[in-house]
Amino acid sequence: MSHPTGLKELTQLIARLPGLGPRSARRVILMLLKNKKDLMEPLAQAMGDIARDIKECQLCGNWDTTSPCHICQDPKRDPHHLCIVETVADLWALERTTSYRGHFHALGGTLSALDGRRPEDLRIPQLIERLRNQPVQEVILGLNATVDGQTTMYYIADRLKEFPVKVTALAHGVPLGGELDYLDEGTISTALMARRAVG
Amino acid sequence: MSHPTGLKELTQLIARLPGLGPRSARRVILMLLKNKKDLMEPLAQAMGDIARDIKECQLCGNWDTTSPCHICQDPKRDPHHLCIVETVADLWALERTTSYRGHFHALGGTLSALDGRRPEDLRIPQLIERLRNQPVQEVILGLNATVDGQTTMYYIADRLKEFPVKVTALAHGVPLGGELDYLDEGTISTALMARRAVG
Repeated sequence: MSHPTGLKELTQLIARLPGLGPRSARRVILMLLKNKKDLMEPLAQAMGDIARDIKECQLCGNWDTTSPCHICQDPKRDPHHLCIVETVADLWALERTTSYRGHFHALGGTLSALDGRRPEDLRIPQLIERLRNQPVQEVILGLNATVDGQTTMYYIADRLKEFPVKVTALAHGVPLGGELDYLDEGTISTALMARRAVG
Repeated sequence: MSHPTGLKELTQLIARLPGLGPRSARRVILMLLKNKKDLMEPLAQAMGDIARDIKECQLCGNWDTTSPCHICQDPKRDPHHLCIVETVADLWALERTTSYRGHFHALGGTLSALDGRRPEDLRIPQLIERLRNQPVQEVILGLNATVDGQTTMYYIADRLKEFPVKVTALAHGVPLGGELDYLDEGTISTALMARRAVG
């Protein structure tokens, strides 16, 4: 009622973004209006461009403006290592570390009996297909340390038995900067069992 | 490095919005990509449309797709009441109450000796001009209960002495739902001094 139609619609769209509600959406809008030239216009443009150009990489499931994506296309990446992750968010998180130079395979989620997600609902058939064509030597299971993540991990490890590949998983332990006092018992016991020699 | 250029640029733009940082910007992007058709595309469109069409109302300082804005143009609004607010955000906040049916005048901020904002930097000359042309009977000072807001309020009240208008200000007191235990002493003393007869 206080806004013209367009502004109201924009507020409602922004309020749907994660972490935002009607009040913070209004704050966002006011900031956008104050910075029309150097924020609002480029943002609308960039968002429209990405919405038009983005696609799912047919190989690894990453989102990119090309398919295969720039990671799959990069000749400097090592095709002998394949890291399996649940989501593109996890793929990006691993990419940010810059410590992994192999290829990825995003499943698009985890198996879940409760939510009825079966292997065919994830990109597992594509993974099997890929292992038949790509000279993978090691599959790194980079799934989350959640119940569904670990279930999916064991299911995939089982399916990989038919291939001559080494299968590894991310180490569990105390996160860097983690204080034992604030960690759950499971993490501490795992870290204790996986203890390593020092010096 | 992990994203194509467009995605990186979009992340940086989103991270500049109030209340968001690099991490939540990525969360927003992933949600947008998952909801391309029903969120990302309409959002880009709406934002571009607003960025193109929005302008400052030459009369009251509101943001709208027309100038004069839809409030200034509305023949059902009472031109005898003029409510002065600091920002468009405050104007919208008052509009949301639906209990005010007069006109507005947004100053665009407060006077501030510290930040060097003088009357000419606010929309005060336009206010004086407006009072010469519009049959205003009451000016309601809807400024914030901050030091700068109150300074600005007294300055404007002083400037309005030359006009035959009634000048009022928002009441101070206990906010609805407010618990005395959590309120500052200033608010409680003000509410006590402004006490009203009951029954």
